[in-house]
Amino acid sequence: MYPKNTWYVACTPEEIDGKPLGRQICGEKIVFYRGPEGKVAAVEDFCPHRGAPLSLGFVRDGQLVCGYHGLEMGCDGKVISMPGQRVRGFPCIRSFPVVERYGFVWVWTGDKELADPALIHHLEWADNPEWAYGGGLYHINCEYRLMIDNLMDLTHETYVHASSIGQKEIDEAPVNTRVEGEEVITSRFMENIMAPPFWRAALRGNGLADDVPVDRWQICRFSPPSHVMIEVGVAHAGKGGYDAPPEHKASSIVVDFITPETATSHWYFWGMARNFKPEDKALTDTIREGQGKIFGEDREMLEQQQANILRYPERKLLMLNIDAGGVQSRRLLDQWMAKESAS
Amino acid sequence: MYPKNTWYVACTPEEIDGKPLGRQICGEKIVFYRGPEGKVAAVEDFCPHRGAPLSLGFVRDGQLVCGYHGLEMGCDGKVISMPGQRVRGFPCIRSFPVVERYGFVWVWTGDKELADPALIHHLEWADNPEWAYGGGLYHINCEYRLMIDNLMDLTHETYVHASSIGQKEIDEAPVNTRVEGEEVITSRFMENIMAPPFWRAALRGNGLADDVPVDRWQICRFSPPSHVMIEVGVAHAGKGGYDAPPEHKASSIVVDFITPETATSHWYFWGMARNFKPEDKALTDTIREGQGKIFGEDREMLEQQQANILRYPERKLLMLNIDAGGVQSRRLLDQWMAKESAS
Amino acid sequence: MYPKNTWYVACTPEEIDGKPLGRQICGEKIVFYRGPEGKVAAVEDFCPHRGAPLSLGFVRDGQLVCGYHGLEMGCDGKVISMPGQRVRGFPCIRSFPVVERYGFVWVWTGDKELADPALIHHLEWADNPEWAYGGGLYHINCEYRLMIDNLMDLTHETYVHASSIGQKEIDEAPVNTRVEGEEVITSRFMENIMAPPFWRAALRGNGLADDVPVDRWQICRFSPPSHVMIEVGVAHAGKGGYDAPPEHKASSIVVDFITPETATSHWYFWGMARNFKPEDKALTDTIREGQGKIFGEDREMLEQQQANILRYPERKLLMLNIDAGGVQSRRLLDQWMAKESAS
Repeated sequence: MYPKNTWYVACTPEEIDGKPLGRQICGEKIVFYRGPEGKVAAVEDFCPHRGAPLSLGFVRDGQLVCGYHGLEMGCDGKVISMPGQRVRGFPCIRSFPVVERYGFVWVWTGDKELADPALIHHLEWADNPEWAYGGGLYHINCEYRLMIDNLMDLTHETYVHASSIGQKEIDEAPVNTRVEGEEVITSRFMENIMAPPFWRAALRGNGLADDVPVDRWQICRFSPPSHVMIEVGVAHAGKGGYDAPPEHKASSIVVDFITPETATSHWYFWGMARNFKPEDKALTDTIREGQGKIFGEDREMLEQQQANILRYPERKLLMLNIDAGGVQSRRLLDQWMAKESAS
Repeated sequence: MYPKNTWYVACTPEEIDGKPLGRQICGEKIVFYRGPEGKVAAVEDFCPHRGAPLSLGFVRDGQLVCGYHGLEMGCDGKVISMPGQRVRGFPCIRSFPVVERYGFVWVWTGDKELADPALIHHLEWADNPEWAYGGGLYHINCEYRLMIDNLMDLTHETYVHASSIGQKEIDEAPVNTRVEGEEVITSRFMENIMAPPFWRAALRGNGLADDVPVDRWQICRFSPPSHVMIEVGVAHAGKGGYDAPPEHKASSIVVDFITPETATSHWYFWGMARNFKPEDKALTDTIREGQGKIFGEDREMLEQQQANILRYPERKLLMLNIDAGGVQSRRLLDQWMAKESAS
Repeated sequence: MYPKNTWYVACTPEEIDGKPLGRQICGEKIVFYRGPEGKVAAVEDFCPHRGAPLSLGFVRDGQLVCGYHGLEMGCDGKVISMPGQRVRGFPCIRSFPVVERYGFVWVWTGDKELADPALIHHLEWADNPEWAYGGGLYHINCEYRLMIDNLMDLTHETYVHASSIGQKEIDEAPVNTRVEGEEVITSRFMENIMAPPFWRAALRGNGLADDVPVDRWQICRFSPPSHVMIEVGVAHAGKGGYDAPPEHKASSIVVDFITPETATSHWYFWGMARNFKPEDKALTDTIREGQGKIFGEDREMLEQQQANILRYPERKLLMLNIDAGGVQSRRLLDQWMAKESAS
């Protein structure tokens, strides 16, 4: 269903600010918190004493304390202490490799031995003062691959997001899909069109006229396990399109981290990274709000698509040229999972 | 569980006004809409492209358009077009015979070949300026036959509707049940009694004194698959009762279309047709409001009855003389279903 | 799972004041009401006519009347009458032994022959003008034994109730557990400590200084099937502790009746009996409100503990010295249940 030997985004640092966070990832109930020296830590959300969720407890001097009877758990899953008890013989619980990087907490739910932090994808826009990032998190009741399909076929914008980023020209422009190593890239270029509302606002946000024809582009990049980065933008028509100099365009990267929760649900970390006016926090907020509405439209569609598919498990869905991005992404995932079960 | 080769009320025209409607009927998820030339249409609520519910889409020039990627579906279940695609080889989905008549949309979920619109029951009070009709729709979590039982045994009015149409005399009056062809008729006549609140209001609504003794009648008519029409009324006592001339009575037809959704839930289209003061829209509204409250009382009882029965599936329920209407109705239904499974 | 040949608290008299009450106990759906001469009665919540819940009906002259079609049920489960029907051949439903005593209604869901009211535990504080009682009822989604564990190990107060009755010294004081006949007693004594907020308020409520050191005690008594009475209190330090004369202490009994609903849920009747200022109703209300908040904290913890345990049914929980009270209580319960299934 989903690769396990890989890094998934688990949460943002704010979510573990001052208190532990319980979250299910890849079928595992996990508690995330700041351990010794403020380093992120993750262990099973199950106290070995009486089975209470450790996420109902608190953190004291970097140690997780069970909120039921005070058992103190180490970030390695070994019990440290408990009031009035010798804890040497207490059973351990599972701990999970976890890394804080690029403004996210990453977790590895597979074979611990293989958990190399160097495998976390490099994010050029993170920790970079020339870029600004804003985003959010949705819980979505559909399997994570339906979200990958969604993001690798942007013709849906014309229908699902008709009032913001959709426009007829997306449907009409040819799409190109290719696989480069462990990346699937699907791209579309539209020339000399009028920008839809979301992009008009982005042009104005960047101090550019919004009532003149533009060139628009969408370059979706999937890489396993479930990251989709989409370069999107518009430039005043005839200034070079995707390659136009910054003063003629508004462009950004749609950031999607899709983390499986169960076989039929996932955590969707969405956001946008931009390299214009990075210091403009009001603009970041405006974009986040607009994006939140747009991805809310996807949620409604995806959850009902999932419900329909579960009703008719035997039906084969179509795989058209516009679906090539999703199809190739699933092929990469299948290869990963085959490799995992072989090893 | 329920006959399939028959016409059920699916929705009212207002429910498909300007947008498609997704509704499950007899276990089938169906989308209803106005197709070419405004004619009602019904197909499976499942886009053959990626499984999205078509009911999340919209209607454009009489064609249903999927709200996910713009596939255009014909009312025969054949794909008409999709942006940038050749659709000739696309799989079809199921379409359902559907007819608009008497102010309702009727659907046939069984064998299409047998779907003869002439089989729709004639409704004398519909499309007739001498009659007025008002009604509503409830979703009820119980199998449709419990609702038929309910309507074919009005002794429940004394208990479930004590403050509106119930009165002790219903219990005391003998009930007569007979089968005439494909109709079950159960009737009760009460003489020289005081009218209960709902009927006092109806008398006043018709300009008649409400503080004098009346004769009251209830004639319930079930016909398969699940229509119950109940002639109800009161006349000033001694004026002829059911046969009294119009100036001495207030009478009407309680209209019940009971459409199975699943084995344990149904759509209940309820209403009242009357042939006095048909032009008085305020009276129609008042009656609808009163009826809505009354049928809400039934819903509470029926849903809890269903839950209880599901808990004790092995228990046999009683079939008393007052239950004869329901018993005979179920017998007719069993015959229909036996005929269907034989063919 | 739970003993059946025993008395459980079913409800309080106010809950059947003027109307029947439907409640599931030990897996049985039961309707409780005041029968002939105001005596409490309990029968299956299932009308033998059409399966409607009798709890939706009403009581007329001490007889339960079904709210659907007026069947009149006797408190022995035999039908008394029904409008227009001979009921002699009607099937009976089950009736349950039920007793009103000590301000509660008690029910026996096991073998009727064994239901001796003398087996109801004596409650010294009930029906006694020197004592006042206040309490409430929570529905809790966890098996009843997790609640017994909770109440027989009060070290949880330090963590779950940190802001009211918890304090570090509970953890540090040794606990003593012993079995006396059919009673498990676990006790803890703390000397010369400062009282936590709830007990400071109780001292003030009893006209005592709250800013001086106290001796504190907790004596938990479990007796099958699921009663936990906890003697709790504080006395000004050095005045004799538990044995101090009344003018130096504030003490009371935490009352817990834990009634299984299903295998994974129960009804929790909680309260406090005190023998100081019994006439002070405002104090009773204040204590009830404080206790309600405290037990709400337990509910949250217990329901999530249950969910966690259901996820990992194969995991063995620890049984530490602090768990001895729960462990011994479960042992007694196992003995009871073994005896029941043997007989």
